[in-house]
Formats: sequence, structure tokens, C-alpha cells
Amino acid sequence: MPPETDHSAPVTIACIQFEPKIGELAANLEAIETRVRQAHANGARLIVLPELADSGYVFDSAEELADLAQPIPEGISAQRLIALAAELGIHIVSGLAEAADGGFYNSAMLCGPEGYIGTYRKMHLWYRENLFFRKGDLGLPVFDTPLGKIGIAICYDGWFPETFRQLAINGAEVICVPTNWVPMPDQDPQTEAMSNILHKAAAHSNGLFIACADRVGTERGQPFIGQSLIIDATGWPLAGPASREDEDILYAQITPADVPAKRKLNEFNDIFGDRRTDVYS
Amino acid sequence: MPPETDHSAPVTIACIQFEPKIGELAANLEAIETRVRQAHANGARLIVLPELADSGYVFDSAEELADLAQPIPEGISAQRLIALAAELGIHIVSGLAEAADGGFYNSAMLCGPEGYIGTYRKMHLWYRENLFFRKGDLGLPVFDTPLGKIGIAICYDGWFPETFRQLAINGAEVICVPTNWVPMPDQDPQTEAMSNILHKAAAHSNGLFIACADRVGTERGQPFIGQSLIIDATGWPLAGPASREDEDILYAQITPADVPAKRKLNEFNDIFGDRRTDVYS
Repeated sequence: MPPETDHSAPVTIACIQFEPKIGELAANLEAIETRVRQAHANGARLIVLPELADSGYVFDSAEELADLAQPIPEGISAQRLIALAAELGIHIVSGLAEAADGGFYNSAMLCGPEGYIGTYRKMHLWYRENLFFRKGDLGLPVFDTPLGKIGIAICYDGWFPETFRQLAINGAEVICVPTNWVPMPDQDPQTEAMSNILHKAAAHSNGLFIACADRVGTERGQPFIGQSLIIDATGWPLAGPASREDEDILYAQITPADVPAKRKLNEFNDIFGDRRTDVYS
Repeated sequence: MPPETDHSAPVTIACIQFEPKIGELAANLEAIETRVRQAHANGARLIVLPELADSGYVFDSAEELADLAQPIPEGISAQRLIALAAELGIHIVSGLAEAADGGFYNSAMLCGPEGYIGTYRKMHLWYRENLFFRKGDLGLPVFDTPLGKIGIAICYDGWFPETFRQLAINGAEVICVPTNWVPMPDQDPQTEAMSNILHKAAAHSNGLFIACADRVGTERGQPFIGQSLIIDATGWPLAGPASREDEDILYAQITPADVPAKRKLNEFNDIFGDRRTDVYS
């Protein structure tokens, strides 16, 4: 029996930080497969990839995106990941450019040893994404897998604490975050990534694990800041932050079944029991 | 005309980090007055003090608390602060032990040059506070002052992102946070205070200023971790973190009237306009 079928067992999770190339679908899928195989060989059973890992991020036009985006799970990118997950007996979460219903979504797909599991469509669109993508219309699904209950958020979704809170309420024990985080205009370049501050706060406030895979490199003048991070349900880092510039793979062991116990802070305090829903609904 | 009457003018805010002594009301009020006068002399017009600054924190019994807690604004502590604010022409936010309706609240009072303005009662009670205090029953008020719109949260309130979000929705431009933050059981002592991570995330997510005054010292075996912090509406620190062990006063200039502009991130994104209240209510 593979280790991921025991919900209460520790799971080795990996975040793959790499540099997708805009428009180079075949090369990106090859790069993903190489790194997923490496992470699997190192023991990972749940693997997270960045936002728009198959297509790149800085589109020049809707036409360029249209040439890259594909249906999920029928398209080339999704089918490649599904085959890889089945072959290796692992779960994969990856950002993908999705074509659906005559439009496009900035999506992430979860697949596992048994095939396609589900899709999340980014709800909060950052900057020029608004020119190309529709806002996500699938809510904040949580997928009950043999590894644990998995939710997904993408990049700017993390600016909104409701994203993580609602995923927690929906049952998430682990939130996988494909991201392409950019430097903030007013940021000292040596400062910690704001995405990491948001994710540590969210893991702490919600008592759940967060695994963020960011990209690196500069694409059409837009730099990305790396610093992928895997965070314990207490809010403290388990692995990372990864490099600001270089490709990297982070690994950590997590036990999603520990989440209910981690939310019971002491004999008086329980993170969800203490919420004052009489004041903030 | 004093500078604080112009809502659009910069305000010098100060966070006073000091060590209240359990049970020593008169000495604590003396210590507060000395430090408030010092902060005023250095230009501060809005001054934040720690949680339970007049009473200390680690009560042995309800009887001990009963001897210390007083009505707000009629009690000794409140009247001392009100007189000081009137004399100096400043605003003060201080944590105080409040007696009301036959019970006790872990409260904070705001007063200004014109006198008493309002009270906030801590909504989320940490650990043994539950033995002594009632849960706050005044909601999350925002006080419209000549300096700007001021909300208050206290310590463990900050574990809950809804606290800051609801204060922002209620109109807050500045959130003053009196706190007595303790080390987390699983924390590397050299790591940044989790309260600071929560506050930076909250300032960033809500586009508002946060000024946190923590205490230092060890009281009846309970250490407190200092690291008071003043945070810009972008989420980046303006002053601090203060020392982990020593008393300190932090100063920063903030312009509460800038908050609406800071929430407009670019031509596509607005922090409150982008919220997906169709998904998370």
C-alpha cells in the first residue's frame, strides 16, 4: 500500500520553484516533468508547482493566451500531469492556463494516482490578468484525498484573508498555493516577500499547513521573487524560504491529520471555537 | 490650532513599550505619565500603551483583579489619562482593567484633548483571562477623531483576521493594538514575534496603519516578548520592532487621510473592490 493512502500518516510535500518560459508550452512541460520526477525520487508524495507553470505569465495579448490555454482535464498540460501522477503514484497541484466556455481562467489542477481530481479558478485577478482572464467561478473547493483535505489559492488570492479562512471553514487541512509573486512597488528588495508574511499569518490564524510554490526569473521586464515556502499549521516555516533568483525544490513532512489538534491551543482556546461570529459574520 | 485638528495632516504616533508591575496601580500610572510626557515632548500626538498597562497581567485570583479594576471613564486610571491628554493636547489609547456591571473586562480606552472618547472591550480572551474577564460586548467600534478614524484591537484579537477586516469595514484608518504578547510554545526565541507577522499581514490586507505597543519583562514566571511595531498601510514597518527585553518608545509619522489612496493599488485593483463577497460573505 503506498504511504499516501493513510490519512493520518506524515506526507512529504515538495514545492518546485522554477522559471517557466512565456509561450514555450512543450519546454515548460518537459521542465515540470523532470523536476516532478526528481521530487518524487526524493520522497515527495504531494508536489506543488507555480502559477501558470505551463504557459508563463506576461502575455502580450489575448491571442497569445488563446494559443496556450487548454481545457482541464482534456488538454495537453493536464493530461501530461495526470499521466505523471498516475505513473508515480503521487498527487500534483499545478497552475495552468485554462480555456473553458469561450474564455480563459488562471487555474490550478489537482490530480492524483487515480487521475484528475479537481480544478480551482483564481478568484482575485491581479493587474493585467484582468485583461485576459475571467474571474474564478468555482468558489473555494476542498478536495478530500487520501493524503488529507487539500484547498488551493493562487497568488493575489492571498491578499484576502477570507480566502484562507473560507478554505479552512470548507475543511482544508493543507492549502497549496501556486504563485507568481511580484515585488511590491514600495518594497526594499532585501525584505522578506509579502506573500510569505501573508501565508505565515494565514497558517497561524487558521491552524493549517500552507505550501507555496513561486516562480523565479524576469519575463518581458517583469521580475518574480521566488522565496517559495512550506509552513507548519502553527505559522512557522518548515522549509524555505527558497532562493530569490534560483530554481529550487523545497521538502517538508506534514501530517494533515494533526490539524484538529493544532487548532486546540490550550484548555481555554480553540481557534475556531473562539471566533466571534456574533460580531463579524 | 494644534496640528492634530487637520485630518489630512501627518500625525506623529508613538508606541510606549514598558514593564507594568502586577498590582502596582499607582506606580504604573506614574510610569505611564512619565513616558507619555516624554513621547509628547518628542512630538507624538497619538500615543499607544500596552494591554492592561495600569494593572499588570498575571492575576492570581479574581479578588486581586477586583482590587485593581475600575470603571471607565470614572476610575483613577482613566481619569489620570484623560487629564494628561487634555493638558498635553494629545490622544492616548491605553489598555486598562475595567470594572463594569459587576464584572471585569480587558479593555482599552481612547481619550483626547476634549476628554473621554470611547472604550473597546477585548473580544477574544487568551488562556487564563477566561477565568477573570468577560468577553467584550461592545463590538469593534471606530472612533472618528481629528487625527483620523481609530479602531482598537487587543493582543489575541489579532489571531483572528476578521478583527482587522471588520474594523476596516467599519471605517478604521489606524488600528491601535495594546498587547501583552507571550512566546508561542513552539517558537524559536530568536524568531520574529508572531504578533508582528499577523499585524503586517493585516495592515497589508486592509490598507491601514497598525501601531502595536507591547510590554516587556517577566511577571510571575510569564515572559513577554516586546518587539512593538508601527506599520505602514502597505504592510511594511515604519518603526521598530522594538527590543525584546527593554523599555522603548517608537515614533513614526503617519497620514491617515492617505488610506483610501493606498487601497487603490493600480488601475485594475482596489483592495475592497476586489473582495469576492459572492464567495465569502
